Amino acid sequence: MPTGTPRGPTTGLGLAMGPGGERGDPGAAPVGDEGTARVGRTMLLHRAWITSATTVAGPSEGRGPLGRAFDQVLADQLLGQATWEQAERRMLQRAVEDLAANQGRRLADYDLLLAGDLLNQSVSCSYAARDLDVPFCGLFTACATFAEGLGLAGALCESGTCRRVLVAVCSHHDTAERQYRFPTELVSQRPPTAQWTATGAVAAAIEREAAGPGPVRITAFTPGRVLDFHERDPFHMGAAMAPAAADTIATHLRDLARGPEAYDAIYTGDLAAVGASICEDLLRTAGVHVRLRDCGVELYDRAHQDVHAGGSGAACSALVFAAQLLPALRAGWGRACLCCTGALHSLTTYQQGESIPAVAHAVSLEAHAGEGA
Amino acid sequence: MPTGTPRGPTTGLGLAMGPGGERGDPGAAPVGDEGTARVGRTMLLHRAWITSATTVAGPSEGRGPLGRAFDQVLADQLLGQATWEQAERRMLQRAVEDLAANQGRRLADYDLLLAGDLLNQSVSCSYAARDLDVPFCGLFTACATFAEGLGLAGALCESGTCRRVLVAVCSHHDTAERQYRFPTELVSQRPPTAQWTATGAVAAAIEREAAGPGPVRITAFTPGRVLDFHERDPFHMGAAMAPAAADTIATHLRDLARGPEAYDAIYTGDLAAVGASICEDLLRTAGVHVRLRDCGVELYDRAHQDVHAGGSGAACSALVFAAQLLPALRAGWGRACLCCTGALHSLTTYQQGESIPAVAHAVSLEAHAGEGA
Repeated sequence: MPTGTPRGPTTGLGLAMGPGGERGDPGAAPVGDEGTARVGRTMLLHRAWITSATTVAGPSEGRGPLGRAFDQVLADQLLGQATWEQAERRMLQRAVEDLAANQGRRLADYDLLLAGDLLNQSVSCSYAARDLDVPFCGLFTACATFAEGLGLAGALCESGTCRRVLVAVCSHHDTAERQYRFPTELVSQRPPTAQWTATGAVAAAIEREAAGPGPVRITAFTPGRVLDFHERDPFHMGAAMAPAAADTIATHLRDLARGPEAYDAIYTGDLAAVGASICEDLLRTAGVHVRLRDCGVELYDRAHQDVHAGGSGAACSALVFAAQLLPALRAGWGRACLCCTGALHSLTTYQQGESIPAVAHAVSLEAHAGEGA
Repeated sequence: MPTGTPRGPTTGLGLAMGPGGERGDPGAAPVGDEGTARVGRTMLLHRAWITSATTVAGPSEGRGPLGRAFDQVLADQLLGQATWEQAERRMLQRAVEDLAANQGRRLADYDLLLAGDLLNQSVSCSYAARDLDVPFCGLFTACATFAEGLGLAGALCESGTCRRVLVAVCSHHDTAERQYRFPTELVSQRPPTAQWTATGAVAAAIEREAAGPGPVRITAFTPGRVLDFHERDPFHMGAAMAPAAADTIATHLRDLARGPEAYDAIYTGDLAAVGASICEDLLRTAGVHVRLRDCGVELYDRAHQDVHAGGSGAACSALVFAAQLLPALRAGWGRACLCCTGALHSLTTYQQGESIPAVAHAVSLEAHAGEGA
């Protein structure tokens, strides 16, 4: 863990760390404050069904433990394109087009595409959107973008202004590494705390009406606050992101008056091995005893794949969501939490000697049988 | 205008250019398709009040025709900070904090901050958010981000999951120029079509309940599709963005079954002088005859300020909105449209020889007296 006075809206980590303390304890079945569908920092959703998800995974990701669960595994990092950047956007386009095809729909049947990636000016998503006949709103909270998208898409369906919204994210190992750290051609040595940016793209459909086999609902969305605990090492992002994840998870549980035992699993994504352990420690000091599942750990076989602490990248948590979490909810789990984490630095802020702020957004996901917020 | 086959979901520009043709003509008072609050590509909003807006403007912007209408004009580009990047984020933080103070609220009274800027990884907003005690979701569609934020914030209030949402954007001439084009210290010559990235920050509060003097409501939000007409010159962004603006404005009007005469003004932001003229031509070929007001033109005195075609930057349209459009609605206008435009390229895509895709998002804004979508 980095030392020094943490910077952020709240410096203490604990069960009092969210602003939700204003409200009374909502009990087991929370109802909204002041006639609204929210409790504390958490939005309550009733009309936000995840009806489908599609994955495109890179070669390394395909060789990992979830390899067989991906819809498509690429043979190489280039996908027949001239540049890695073009390959990244093609993955996203393919994930979205395949999703629509799987649902038997045209792209014009969707009301909106909410999408984000890690590249400067989110060019993977916006260049892909040129070839997708659907309105586009870009999102960015780095590797937390997928949960931001699920939550906002859910609220849009809840509002009645949208019938169905596409949420999509992508990342590419080689484009991200050369942008954030070193060109991969240099084969720079990396410390054990480093994470491996995942190559892949994921698209999910969020709808007002349930559809498809084993529908799963987004029942709550807790957007995170930005915290900065003075970590400055872009090879130690798990430590930078762990406090934000702990803050959001503790707030999510407190707002909903739940303990971790109310969930079949709480996923973080992507703190990787080092960060997830720090996050568990922080939650313990806040009175929350939980064994986290981290998407950065689940995505690779760390004993046989040289990914150091584990995976990262906007696609990392989304790939694990689509290949492991969503199938588990369809196969019998009642409820799970997905808390995606993002490190919000840039190469410029690193070069200017700044620390790395982080954010984490959490959604509660429930299988049809377990309906009721 | 660039030549060649345009790339995008729809290649023809005209009144048939949106997917909304599926629906019947909704008449003067549109109602939603299939029991939802939307028509075609347009979301209909009833509980989205703009209750306050705060501006921080740079020195050049302060010397422009709207100078006296800004809440704060900076003496220089650095704001007492060590770097321009730090100055940019301080402007955003100040706009948000001043807004809360003007409303007599704490930041924790707001449910969410939706914010975006032009810098890589949106670091202005996320670094500012470290010191703002409110959950943060980052947005990015370049200079169209402000309208994306207004629309999404409106839908969040509509859904009942949020009571009040902060929307904030910023841009800074020197940080943007050195990231996208040349370091300003080089004093590179710029062609007449070039635009001047505005320095400033704007925060607005969107609420479920009307409040404050002369409340104004967001009544409709039309998110745009990404279009690419093969413009490759980052000094000719007006031409790159004009087709997207024409597509969104024509769709917005058709969805709502309105002509341009239904609006006291239709603002584009920020096509500047060259792009606005191209957009008017494109709309004319689609049967829409309208004289646009462009935020990039309104922000500066082009006869005496050396901004070439006019302003740009995420703050440009937001500054004109807060200093000219919102006051006009409070002072007697019934209805206005704000269509913010964004060029979605990066330095990498430019260096890789790619063209510049663009998007435009439109909102209808109505004074209290003119209620009713």
